[in-house]
Amino acid sequence: MKLYTYFRSSAAYRVRIALGLKGLPYEAVPVHLLKNGGEQLGEPYRGINPAALVPALQDDGATITQSMAIIEYLEEVHPQTPLLPAAPADRARVRALAQTIACDTHPLSNLRVLKYLTGTLGISDEAKTEWMHQWMKLGLASFEALLGDGKAGRFCHGDTPSLADCVLLPQVFNAQRFGVDLAPYPQIVRIAANCSELPAFQAAHPSRQPDAE
Amino acid sequence: MKLYTYFRSSAAYRVRIALGLKGLPYEAVPVHLLKNGGEQLGEPYRGINPAALVPALQDDGATITQSMAIIEYLEEVHPQTPLLPAAPADRARVRALAQTIACDTHPLSNLRVLKYLTGTLGISDEAKTEWMHQWMKLGLASFEALLGDGKAGRFCHGDTPSLADCVLLPQVFNAQRFGVDLAPYPQIVRIAANCSELPAFQAAHPSRQPDAE
Repeated sequence: MKLYTYFRSSAAYRVRIALGLKGLPYEAVPVHLLKNGGEQLGEPYRGINPAALVPALQDDGATITQSMAIIEYLEEVHPQTPLLPAAPADRARVRALAQTIACDTHPLSNLRVLKYLTGTLGISDEAKTEWMHQWMKLGLASFEALLGDGKAGRFCHGDTPSLADCVLLPQVFNAQRFGVDLAPYPQIVRIAANCSELPAFQAAHPSRQPDAE
Repeated sequence: MKLYTYFRSSAAYRVRIALGLKGLPYEAVPVHLLKNGGEQLGEPYRGINPAALVPALQDDGATITQSMAIIEYLEEVHPQTPLLPAAPADRARVRALAQTIACDTHPLSNLRVLKYLTGTLGISDEAKTEWMHQWMKLGLASFEALLGDGKAGRFCHGDTPSLADCVLLPQVFNAQRFGVDLAPYPQIVRIAANCSELPAFQAAHPSRQPDAE
């Protein structure tokens, strides 16, 4: 398997964690999101993913895009170390947690959005930071509230890591990177600490990637 | 089943289509996103969905949130009229199309984001419209490009409607509502027309909801 990745991409980070939890070896192909005007926007990469975003996974002749679709694919093809629980309502809970980050939180602070805010709209760096904090805090608060249903354990769902943890950790990394105070989210802080003890989460960390800077 | 919905919510619209395609009856409980400062933000509704967003589905004692998690749940519990194909790579393709809208496109023009842009950042109505057009055009162009892999048929994946069509149609509705020219996306226009002929898509349309204004 070949993963097109960028060390700091939250979406690629999610997939790296899932690959690690399932013990699947892969070749990392770095795509630099900033150099040369963004390598993801150039023709060679658009031939792999016409949406011009990382990650993309190539496996068995197919190219899979979108981090959550990739993780669901890995779950179906390599069911060992399941990242979704068995019961439909529990699976929905894990997916809803993941989507709270992947749909409601992360898209608002990705690279192209921040560029538009500072470039086209001309907002200041301070206003940009406030923007990021606004959506990260709202997303983390929602996630924390959803965790309060008694189904969290050592991890977001019970005592084994799931898709929800794969998506949460990169968002926690981003929040810390941009100075968001995590004290209001004690369950998230506790779960993130538990995740960080596992080799799969450690190996997927941006600082441990071949393209880390 | 009880669906907490708002007639114009794209996310609720997706779920209404899926329920219709599967022939599942449900009770619609309207949550008004604008009246009373936003009913989704008030205490009664937060007790149902702590993330304060529609839709939420109540079924068999469980509350499921996040539109794509709800549709995956419906797919698992009511497999008749499948909304995902059988092969893992094809399922991934359909999910990636859905996420191209649900993660990369729609979150940038939802109500709370537009409020922040015009309120906190004080941008003009013209700049707000340009913002929405920017992300809708980018998302639709990515979707159109992803459709170009030879696997689209009458619908996004082959000749039966899928999760991807459930997510596409509400985005097309939004794009038309805000004056985005759809001519550059001929596959999307063709598929949307095919969807619009089906009773499930018609019945889910905002104008046909009990809370339509």
